[in-house]
Amino acid sequence: MDKLSVSIVGGSGYTGGELLRLLLFHPAVEIRQITSERNAGKLVTRQHPNLRTVTTLKFSSMEELEKCDLLFLCLPHGQSMEKIDFFRTLAPKIIDLSGDFRLRDTAAFEKWYEKEHVNPGLLEDFVYGIPELHRAEMKNASFISSAGCNATSAILGLYPLYKQGVVSDQPSVIEVKAGTSQAGASFNEGSHHPERSGAIRTYKPFGHRHTGEIIQELSIDKPVNVHFTATSIDMVRGIHCVSHVFLNDDLNEKDIWKMYRSAYGDEPFIRIVKEQSGIHRLPDPKILSGSNYCDIGFIKDTDSNRLVVISAIDNLMKGAAGQAVQAFNIMNGFDETTALTFPGLHPV
Amino acid sequence: MDKLSVSIVGGSGYTGGELLRLLLFHPAVEIRQITSERNAGKLVTRQHPNLRTVTTLKFSSMEELEKCDLLFLCLPHGQSMEKIDFFRTLAPKIIDLSGDFRLRDTAAFEKWYEKEHVNPGLLEDFVYGIPELHRAEMKNASFISSAGCNATSAILGLYPLYKQGVVSDQPSVIEVKAGTSQAGASFNEGSHHPERSGAIRTYKPFGHRHTGEIIQELSIDKPVNVHFTATSIDMVRGIHCVSHVFLNDDLNEKDIWKMYRSAYGDEPFIRIVKEQSGIHRLPDPKILSGSNYCDIGFIKDTDSNRLVVISAIDNLMKGAAGQAVQAFNIMNGFDETTALTFPGLHPV
Amino acid sequence: MDKLSVSIVGGSGYTGGELLRLLLFHPAVEIRQITSERNAGKLVTRQHPNLRTVTTLKFSSMEELEKCDLLFLCLPHGQSMEKIDFFRTLAPKIIDLSGDFRLRDTAAFEKWYEKEHVNPGLLEDFVYGIPELHRAEMKNASFISSAGCNATSAILGLYPLYKQGVVSDQPSVIEVKAGTSQAGASFNEGSHHPERSGAIRTYKPFGHRHTGEIIQELSIDKPVNVHFTATSIDMVRGIHCVSHVFLNDDLNEKDIWKMYRSAYGDEPFIRIVKEQSGIHRLPDPKILSGSNYCDIGFIKDTDSNRLVVISAIDNLMKGAAGQAVQAFNIMNGFDETTALTFPGLHPV
Amino acid sequence: MDKLSVSIVGGSGYTGGELLRLLLFHPAVEIRQITSERNAGKLVTRQHPNLRTVTTLKFSSMEELEKCDLLFLCLPHGQSMEKIDFFRTLAPKIIDLSGDFRLRDTAAFEKWYEKEHVNPGLLEDFVYGIPELHRAEMKNASFISSAGCNATSAILGLYPLYKQGVVSDQPSVIEVKAGTSQAGASFNEGSHHPERSGAIRTYKPFGHRHTGEIIQELSIDKPVNVHFTATSIDMVRGIHCVSHVFLNDDLNEKDIWKMYRSAYGDEPFIRIVKEQSGIHRLPDPKILSGSNYCDIGFIKDTDSNRLVVISAIDNLMKGAAGQAVQAFNIMNGFDETTALTFPGLHPV
Repeated sequence: MDKLSVSIVGGSGYTGGELLRLLLFHPAVEIRQITSERNAGKLVTRQHPNLRTVTTLKFSSMEELEKCDLLFLCLPHGQSMEKIDFFRTLAPKIIDLSGDFRLRDTAAFEKWYEKEHVNPGLLEDFVYGIPELHRAEMKNASFISSAGCNATSAILGLYPLYKQGVVSDQPSVIEVKAGTSQAGASFNEGSHHPERSGAIRTYKPFGHRHTGEIIQELSIDKPVNVHFTATSIDMVRGIHCVSHVFLNDDLNEKDIWKMYRSAYGDEPFIRIVKEQSGIHRLPDPKILSGSNYCDIGFIKDTDSNRLVVISAIDNLMKGAAGQAVQAFNIMNGFDETTALTFPGLHPV
Repeated sequence: MDKLSVSIVGGSGYTGGELLRLLLFHPAVEIRQITSERNAGKLVTRQHPNLRTVTTLKFSSMEELEKCDLLFLCLPHGQSMEKIDFFRTLAPKIIDLSGDFRLRDTAAFEKWYEKEHVNPGLLEDFVYGIPELHRAEMKNASFISSAGCNATSAILGLYPLYKQGVVSDQPSVIEVKAGTSQAGASFNEGSHHPERSGAIRTYKPFGHRHTGEIIQELSIDKPVNVHFTATSIDMVRGIHCVSHVFLNDDLNEKDIWKMYRSAYGDEPFIRIVKEQSGIHRLPDPKILSGSNYCDIGFIKDTDSNRLVVISAIDNLMKGAAGQAVQAFNIMNGFDETTALTFPGLHPV
Repeated sequence: MDKLSVSIVGGSGYTGGELLRLLLFHPAVEIRQITSERNAGKLVTRQHPNLRTVTTLKFSSMEELEKCDLLFLCLPHGQSMEKIDFFRTLAPKIIDLSGDFRLRDTAAFEKWYEKEHVNPGLLEDFVYGIPELHRAEMKNASFISSAGCNATSAILGLYPLYKQGVVSDQPSVIEVKAGTSQAGASFNEGSHHPERSGAIRTYKPFGHRHTGEIIQELSIDKPVNVHFTATSIDMVRGIHCVSHVFLNDDLNEKDIWKMYRSAYGDEPFIRIVKEQSGIHRLPDPKILSGSNYCDIGFIKDTDSNRLVVISAIDNLMKGAAGQAVQAFNIMNGFDETTALTFPGLHPV
Repeated sequence: MDKLSVSIVGGSGYTGGELLRLLLFHPAVEIRQITSERNAGKLVTRQHPNLRTVTTLKFSSMEELEKCDLLFLCLPHGQSMEKIDFFRTLAPKIIDLSGDFRLRDTAAFEKWYEKEHVNPGLLEDFVYGIPELHRAEMKNASFISSAGCNATSAILGLYPLYKQGVVSDQPSVIEVKAGTSQAGASFNEGSHHPERSGAIRTYKPFGHRHTGEIIQELSIDKPVNVHFTATSIDMVRGIHCVSHVFLNDDLNEKDIWKMYRSAYGDEPFIRIVKEQSGIHRLPDPKILSGSNYCDIGFIKDTDSNRLVVISAIDNLMKGAAGQAVQAFNIMNGFDETTALTFPGLHPV
């Protein structure tokens, strides 16, 4: 098989490193280059020590980038849209992992990112990168914008309900517990271990950018009334998302099971986790590190019309690099699970 | 000063141990006895190793209990109401730390505890043990029922809003992140370290018993519409409570400040934590271990009428033993902060 | 390719689960059965939730075991030697992961295990399961006894030095920091999360059974003078082993490099980790979870003849299931790295 | 009682904050000033959020310092010796918590600190700050140099053995497991939470400055042969020190008990922790956070002359601020335990 030549732009961060780990074991991929301005010329294993002996690649600078079949962009927010014309000269296909092209609506972008979009004309050309919602569009796409990690966990958890139109007009409250790798590899006073270890920080009570993605994807027939809050806990990888939605009708758990099965029955990376006994009854990101699964469970309050939906992912996998590779596989006609079969560890 | 003679019934668990730690340093208290059926005759320091050299007390069995001025009951739920008549023959004053006498209404007890109350006639005689709401009644009380830990964090966070009647009819969603000491000293498969370390378990999506206390205390003029979910994370002590309430009027943060200041301005153990910058902007249980503070902060969503209220406590202190000692001080005319001045550690 | 039919005896524990995870992705293996007396008839995913949707296997009881090509034994210590004759009727090849057949010398077994060996005649028939030391014997072996986890980390760290005969007669001190998965899936008071989280327990100051393996494997020309201590810290997976050895001659780091390169130059699962700068200068089990690597580093004290050797592994992988699969591959003529290429995660 | 007026120089770090916490509750102390160049004019509670509502102190700059009765110096290493003449004009008594005046011998200072001492003439005037070894000298001292945290744990663990002359000439190996607060409040790439959480870093295989203190204090009759290694684990506070010493004679555990009892029998902050059963058999820093205890235990290898000594402290308390206050109490004739009675928490 002829391999696709692929480069990673912005490869010294956590998402870039995770992408590199996956692609090194992808049988149809040849990694051409991986860039880092600060580390150009150095071994990638200095930043990604888990890959020692697996690769002897060195970082390139962005200006050394050569033409290839596909580019993954793992740049800080704002840089993809600024340099997108340059990247398009290098590769016919692009998967962007930043937030720059996730919102189709320019006004929404400006509201949530609090700045103007540099390249609004391109927004419509990017397919939003959750395969479970946009698989068909991905097959013919040239540009994919990989979804935000918190957004992915919330959207996958709630999509079957909004799709079926069973959510009432009462506000839905979405609470995410996040790990510290979500904030990236840049250190600061707040990420200093003695301050961060054991800490619980509600870093975004409201106004989180991923809210825009949630609204966009769940507003299927009508605008949704969702409220999102994110809290960082003492965890490196993982997102645990609890959504409280108030249902229209008096649905029972069997009805809800049907909706989830209908939406996700054949999905390779969605697992419904809802057991009656044992210690692993509901989704927990603890067992998802390194895996591309999104585990979803739900419980109906017997006293009210509230449904509690719990979804869990590894933010660097299904929330970033893993989902990007899943999209990559779809986009290029490979088996969707290629390079993504690692099931996670237990215990860990 | 003549010391009060005090005994602790059920002293081998975490709440009993914390109470012992506090009372050993209380200048007006002489600890008469501390009971444990399983450990009778053994040094208390076998169960509470932090108290080595501080005390040479040994556990007694319950049947060895002698008369004293006041009894603290730290028994498993259900035992206080069964043995309360016996305990009343031993001491004129009782502070119960179980859930048996927290709900004034028998029907509410049966709903939330799913069993009949053995001694419903006494429910009215117990003062609900949050001093910030019931200080006046405590001063003349013979019986105090110390509040549930999750309930304390939620009630203290929301009380000023419900008292002022500014919460709308839309559902309030309360999410608690809890530590593992909350479940007590009994071990099981789910508390096994390899399974529990790093785990996130939504152990009560709905139906948590403390919900009954929250409803009772916040239904000031009218019944409240609250929804409570509890999730255990990898933490030993501490509760982090995020409440999402939807306000009636278009109140701004200044208005809300006034309500909190009016409710808690002179409270020795409430701190409003709401800073514009720095890494300690909102309440975090990390710095509360061993302290009796309840830290409270809030943020108004600029896009909607949602107010996010964050409250944090040490579940074994303001959520149990500390709050019981605070009530004890009020009940007996001591300075309310006696034996409770430890401010917590940073970093830790 | 015809697949080997393989069964796992004792599959509900952590080692059995890890072995199952690896073998499910081994292209030349068909898993015939996996046993658990307590869970017979139940889905394996109840115990190993990471494998949900990966397998629909159910546990069998031991008496249901059928003939197969090879048996992995993951039983509690003592059971393999008691039932070995039965197992030999089921399969021509056996890999035992318990301690029963690790020591070749009966007297050594009795000293370290403090009981008699039931089947001492078989001790000589088992190859000690560290491939880096016994690869040649493994190729023709019918029976392999997989090495102890702490022993593996210590032996691999020190083998090049003892092989070259450069260690003096002064005592070598070996200190292991261990995770809680090492003690297995059985819970007890000491593994209760509130007690175990953040704890540091020197559980074996001396007398650890793995010491017998270390002595056996490192006593190449003469008896070694080693002293072993194991301390459990707040970690689930991983072993960090620091060995202090006092060298005979005034060797410099270059000389030592040569010894390690000569011993391990072509080893697929040994990495020498010894960098001059950066934050990943020496081996750390943090990045090894799920991988089969043993990372080794060393530093020479410039003031004395002490060499500090640091070795790190994942105790369930290179310390148990991973090393067993590595031996399995050698024994059966497969590429040694088959099913073992997962490189570990960073950050995690 | 007339209060002593005391100032803290260098109060924005972890040691300064811990000292402030202790002194705010010391009945004989009035805190005059606390300095921080970077935070001058700001509330101390910005850096030390646990002290909110406990104090309304603001930081001063060093040049604003006024005369007082006693100065605590919590400056980065090197600054105390440079500015000591200035500080002596401000206060007749000084307790320095840096490493500048710990070594009495100029050559030793230069060896371990790899630079020249600016004020070697003063080295003899400082009393080394471990009360258990130097209480008598402290009573009349003007200058005390508080001991290093790792050094304190090692010295207190081994002092009775070296004092009795029972340690052989074979090398003693001392291994410290340290928390991240030891490295102070300055953040860097290595202290970034995703990198530091769960990590095990042997940051000083040899050459740690505290080795100089250990050698100085334990070389009672003859030079000691000690080898020190420090490894940082995922813990904020706490030191767990395992010392392996090889004894001269065939001493049994009773003999060793006697030595420890004779050395420490009346010490208020030393506890011998050595139980036959239970889960708290040996010292563990987990239960020492916030307390000034040094817990010490030991086990004799039944197979050799090795004694394993385990000592545990809170590095910010008995390893820094607590021990400094203990010395302060002795120096000024106060009860030695004043402001130091907090016993630590369990569980935590």
